[in-house]
Amino acid sequence: MKIDLKEAAERLLSRDHILILTHKNPDGDTLGSGYALCYALQALGKEARVVCSDPVPRKYWYFTDHSAGKQLILPDDTFQPDLIVASDIADTQLFGTALEPFADRVDLCVDHHKSNVYYARETYVDDTASATCEIVYDLLQLMGAQITPKIADCLYTGIATDTGCFKFSNTTGKTHVTAAHLIDLGADYVAINRVMFDTKSRERILLEQMALNSIEFAFDNRCAIILVSQQMMQTSGADESDLDGVSALPRQIEGVEVGITIRERAEGGYKVSMRTTEKVDASVLCQSFGGGGHARAAGCTLEGTPKEVVTALLKATGRALEACS
Amino acid sequence: MKIDLKEAAERLLSRDHILILTHKNPDGDTLGSGYALCYALQALGKEARVVCSDPVPRKYWYFTDHSAGKQLILPDDTFQPDLIVASDIADTQLFGTALEPFADRVDLCVDHHKSNVYYARETYVDDTASATCEIVYDLLQLMGAQITPKIADCLYTGIATDTGCFKFSNTTGKTHVTAAHLIDLGADYVAINRVMFDTKSRERILLEQMALNSIEFAFDNRCAIILVSQQMMQTSGADESDLDGVSALPRQIEGVEVGITIRERAEGGYKVSMRTTEKVDASVLCQSFGGGGHARAAGCTLEGTPKEVVTALLKATGRALEACS
Repeated sequence: MKIDLKEAAERLLSRDHILILTHKNPDGDTLGSGYALCYALQALGKEARVVCSDPVPRKYWYFTDHSAGKQLILPDDTFQPDLIVASDIADTQLFGTALEPFADRVDLCVDHHKSNVYYARETYVDDTASATCEIVYDLLQLMGAQITPKIADCLYTGIATDTGCFKFSNTTGKTHVTAAHLIDLGADYVAINRVMFDTKSRERILLEQMALNSIEFAFDNRCAIILVSQQMMQTSGADESDLDGVSALPRQIEGVEVGITIRERAEGGYKVSMRTTEKVDASVLCQSFGGGGHARAAGCTLEGTPKEVVTALLKATGRALEACS
Repeated sequence: MKIDLKEAAERLLSRDHILILTHKNPDGDTLGSGYALCYALQALGKEARVVCSDPVPRKYWYFTDHSAGKQLILPDDTFQPDLIVASDIADTQLFGTALEPFADRVDLCVDHHKSNVYYARETYVDDTASATCEIVYDLLQLMGAQITPKIADCLYTGIATDTGCFKFSNTTGKTHVTAAHLIDLGADYVAINRVMFDTKSRERILLEQMALNSIEFAFDNRCAIILVSQQMMQTSGADESDLDGVSALPRQIEGVEVGITIRERAEGGYKVSMRTTEKVDASVLCQSFGGGGHARAAGCTLEGTPKEVVTALLKATGRALEACS
């Protein structure tokens, strides 16, 4: 059932033992919104806990207090929730293994994903919000909860990470107004942004160098392709989170309209990540290979030799570039 | 003489032929504030023109309408200004050669630099503003000027570039509120941010690769040093604006507290750019070599062989790191 934000606030205020679920492979928004809610409920004298199926990445430890990459501890017999809340989880498929038992027990879901499948007993979705943290800011106001500097850190983190630091098209005037309040309330935005956007692991630097050495340009430099091999991953010691930034590289080069990153998979085959400017629809291109995604960022999986994969991608990209020039 | 913003608005409204000066090596804030003012004055039926000693970098052409890197044309006999305004220029030393003749003729200066030397007949400085564009937004409101989408583009550009897209410590709640208004007024922030923050020239990519190949770590990886030689600049074809991003690289590496970029100068000697995290004061370190700057970003110039320069810098950095650990 859909409810409004005031009703969501009432539900949270009416219970005293609240379990907050976050999605697997947790990011700044699910953790930020979950912890903001948790700290606010605790300050209101309630028992509250955040859980996640996967370990919390180190860069979020400053507000999660879960050090050493430990998995968030699942409730034991001493914690009997009377309200189970899902924060920023569009679908039960995103619960992950450890949280699966809660799939049909969620009382309240707060989310900003248009793709939300309404699995919870009651759901509040605002898909015009840049992040679930933007919603939780309003929710805490409605609950009369005080937004401490620590809560402001949580909420700012989710908004900044989901908008690429206010760069992506999901950023609205309201997003900035919320950020303004959070800064005025004490969010340590300089330190947060440095960790989220201006820090690269040595492994990622190494991987970027190797990937850039493999770069190929085509169609008057309107297309750039990099290949990330299993060997590069092993030599650099880079992990999945390092790869995200690397996938953004080809399209960042001046003049490039279609940036493609081809990644060799451990289990065989190639995972393709495509980023485009306004002209070419990446999702259409990737759909032609059985993949999909968004207009500016999409993906697909291909089999064959690296050369065959590149040739197939270039052929389709060439047609797309021709159609729009 | 110091004046308030209302008086600045009155001066602008009282004249009909306004010449707007921007600083040499123009950036997003001087051009954004200058052009916003210019377009607003033109819409109010006045004659207005923006001038600059140096060519406008290509990435700002979308709002300056000065293509092909041409220098902004200086006024000829057909344009006789009755008001000369300097936008975002703290000192006449920043006028550059072509604008030097105006050094003692500036009627009004609008700026956000604390270092402003009050060379103009009347000056409005607000050093709590993140950018001169943040001030000009308020100024246009006081003038009753309409903020068109194009003017919003100009103002958003200056704010975004001077704050590193809302990441730097000069960002305030008010900065975000101003950005919110500009987005609501039609600023094309997605395209602007892509050009300003997510686009690298091929030359810069090449230079980054070469510079990273030269990287050295010291003091348990708490310090990283890269060397940019004249040969690297020539081989890559990179220019000054490419170097800015490269200088940020060493400190971006996880765990690095002092990031140093040493650049060989064409005229001999080495220009040192230092970026630090909270712990080490870069300006103090650079002052010990006769340089200066801010706590988190400073610079100095050193003579000697590359090895001597690195040794001297490491010695001083080691002492600074020891003092804070």
